[in-house]
Amino acid sequence: MNSIYFTAGPTQLYPSYRKHLSNAMDLQFGSINHRSEAFRKIYQHTDEQLRQLLNVPKTHSIFFASSATEIWEKMILNLVETTSYHFVNGAFSQKFYDFSLALHKQAVSVEVEEGNGFEINQIQIPNDIELICTTQNETSTGVQFPVNDFKTIKKNNPNSLLCTDLVSIAPYSEIDYSIVDSSFFSVQKAFGMPPGLGVWIVNEACMNKAENLMQKGLNCGAHNTLLSYSKNYKTFETPSTPNVVAIYILGKIAEEMNKMGVATIRNEIDAKAKLLYSMIGIADFFSIFVRDKKFQSPTVAVFDTSISSIQIINHLKQKEMLVSNGYGKGKDKQIRIANFPSTTLDNMEKLIEEINRIV
Amino acid sequence: MNSIYFTAGPTQLYPSYRKHLSNAMDLQFGSINHRSEAFRKIYQHTDEQLRQLLNVPKTHSIFFASSATEIWEKMILNLVETTSYHFVNGAFSQKFYDFSLALHKQAVSVEVEEGNGFEINQIQIPNDIELICTTQNETSTGVQFPVNDFKTIKKNNPNSLLCTDLVSIAPYSEIDYSIVDSSFFSVQKAFGMPPGLGVWIVNEACMNKAENLMQKGLNCGAHNTLLSYSKNYKTFETPSTPNVVAIYILGKIAEEMNKMGVATIRNEIDAKAKLLYSMIGIADFFSIFVRDKKFQSPTVAVFDTSISSIQIINHLKQKEMLVSNGYGKGKDKQIRIANFPSTTLDNMEKLIEEINRIV
Repeated sequence: MNSIYFTAGPTQLYPSYRKHLSNAMDLQFGSINHRSEAFRKIYQHTDEQLRQLLNVPKTHSIFFASSATEIWEKMILNLVETTSYHFVNGAFSQKFYDFSLALHKQAVSVEVEEGNGFEINQIQIPNDIELICTTQNETSTGVQFPVNDFKTIKKNNPNSLLCTDLVSIAPYSEIDYSIVDSSFFSVQKAFGMPPGLGVWIVNEACMNKAENLMQKGLNCGAHNTLLSYSKNYKTFETPSTPNVVAIYILGKIAEEMNKMGVATIRNEIDAKAKLLYSMIGIADFFSIFVRDKKFQSPTVAVFDTSISSIQIINHLKQKEMLVSNGYGKGKDKQIRIANFPSTTLDNMEKLIEEINRIV
Repeated sequence: MNSIYFTAGPTQLYPSYRKHLSNAMDLQFGSINHRSEAFRKIYQHTDEQLRQLLNVPKTHSIFFASSATEIWEKMILNLVETTSYHFVNGAFSQKFYDFSLALHKQAVSVEVEEGNGFEINQIQIPNDIELICTTQNETSTGVQFPVNDFKTIKKNNPNSLLCTDLVSIAPYSEIDYSIVDSSFFSVQKAFGMPPGLGVWIVNEACMNKAENLMQKGLNCGAHNTLLSYSKNYKTFETPSTPNVVAIYILGKIAEEMNKMGVATIRNEIDAKAKLLYSMIGIADFFSIFVRDKKFQSPTVAVFDTSISSIQIINHLKQKEMLVSNGYGKGKDKQIRIANFPSTTLDNMEKLIEEINRIV
């Protein structure tokens, strides 16, 4: 029998994933050339469906990479000559910051304890920052970055580019793309696909910046540069051979999500999140790691456990339900439960029931 | 009905590809964590099978990237402080060279006309070159680099690292890894898989060089650096979430190839290549692009056509057989026919028969 994956990603596959995969094989999409009309149609379809789902305006292009990790690197290489600024409150926002340092930039960070969010009004970002890097949903700690805070950041720093890592939250977040210059995610989280594809959304201001850095003679990398993306995007092509099958399936899943309506998806996530966070009242060896409600992630809930988290994880595993352990310092004393569209309210109820049986 | 892809990659899927894909789905490999025991076993199995198939010694590690194009970039970033040397005789070897220039290295090239190979004894590589870059099979022109020439290069340049791009030829080539420090390929060619995975084989000399460059404070990139690969490889893990399903299937295909024996695979390719290159005697509007037999690729055969290549391609398409057009300058007056393990001798006979009917 199959297990249900409530893991923070890779995770439970989207219910129709396998059907789309099978169709892709029937249509021989694993064999088609990425400079063919067949591929260009796939790219265009996925682009249109993502655009509708995430409300991405015409000012922004949609590119494909292999992972969000790759996009961290390309983002810094193509948009930063000298200075980037990082909101760090967990392992992934920390890695984004580390990437900038590794790429020899003057990276500046504001850091808060894990489990906390940022009080945006108390933070002053230097004027000369070229790129402000935020993580809308810190997958390691279950802390979200309220989308309204992006407005404050952009208002106070109109000359900086603002980017946000949507890895474990797209398509839940309602991003205002007139404020957010660039965002990105990978498909093995809320889109319920196996890993191997990242999506990078980039506006004209970013393209201009990248062009400016190239003209200045800066080393912006060679593979998947913004200029090579942009050039190929004109005909819905990619700089090199991409993960064609995954691009096709992402488009089909986005299409289904659009048919259902993104509001419905958000409502379902909200309903499951409510259940999940309220289970704390019943299971008395659990406490919510993120204290402040406004920072509690709807899609990745993290719980401190007063008994060994491994014991809980193993118990659930026997019942064919998989949850993630904590990350970093929280490894053995936390569990993380993903609340993505791939799992139903029914699934979530079963999980909570089983957790309450552990006592 | 399905078409048969004789294209130079992406290409016809390996006959058992879909079976392995289906098994991967049944086993929920699209959902597993890349830091789990389940993934480590997959990595180890694929590593062992590739090692056996390609005769890779213990001195070399096997890493996974998203594509060979990505590996071009990482190769230059991690192994070159100043100077790289490039054998250029077609579009892909040219791009590898261009990547080094884009990464601000002092890249030097020796170039010959498309369709030609290199007379290795007439070429002198400067002593101070750090990395010598060869393309064992130039997919754009169908020119192979005789494996024996690697010996000459290494003998004359013992202090340079030697790498070779095996993209459209692995596992056909018999590479002597005591001479070749690094090689790489992507899976959408002779391994008959959809695109989305690259394989990078790297020895200790490369690891030492990468460590040395890092210690010198060089910018070696941030994503998929050799040091991050090496650190994670100790436990059969990857620096970030990889294309898990593709890694699994590659291991299963390599396992099948091992059961069949690499000698059998090579013999079958040779037999089909013989047929393919000899068809020229029959179809009088075809001539072999690569004149010198020793440079004729066994896996990608390129033909000049005296009638429009598009006419030929379209005719074959109607018969559900797909071949590639020429590359670059040869776009409209050449066709390229792949001779990978995924197509049978029977398929090749059918293709040749159909080509001869065009007259």
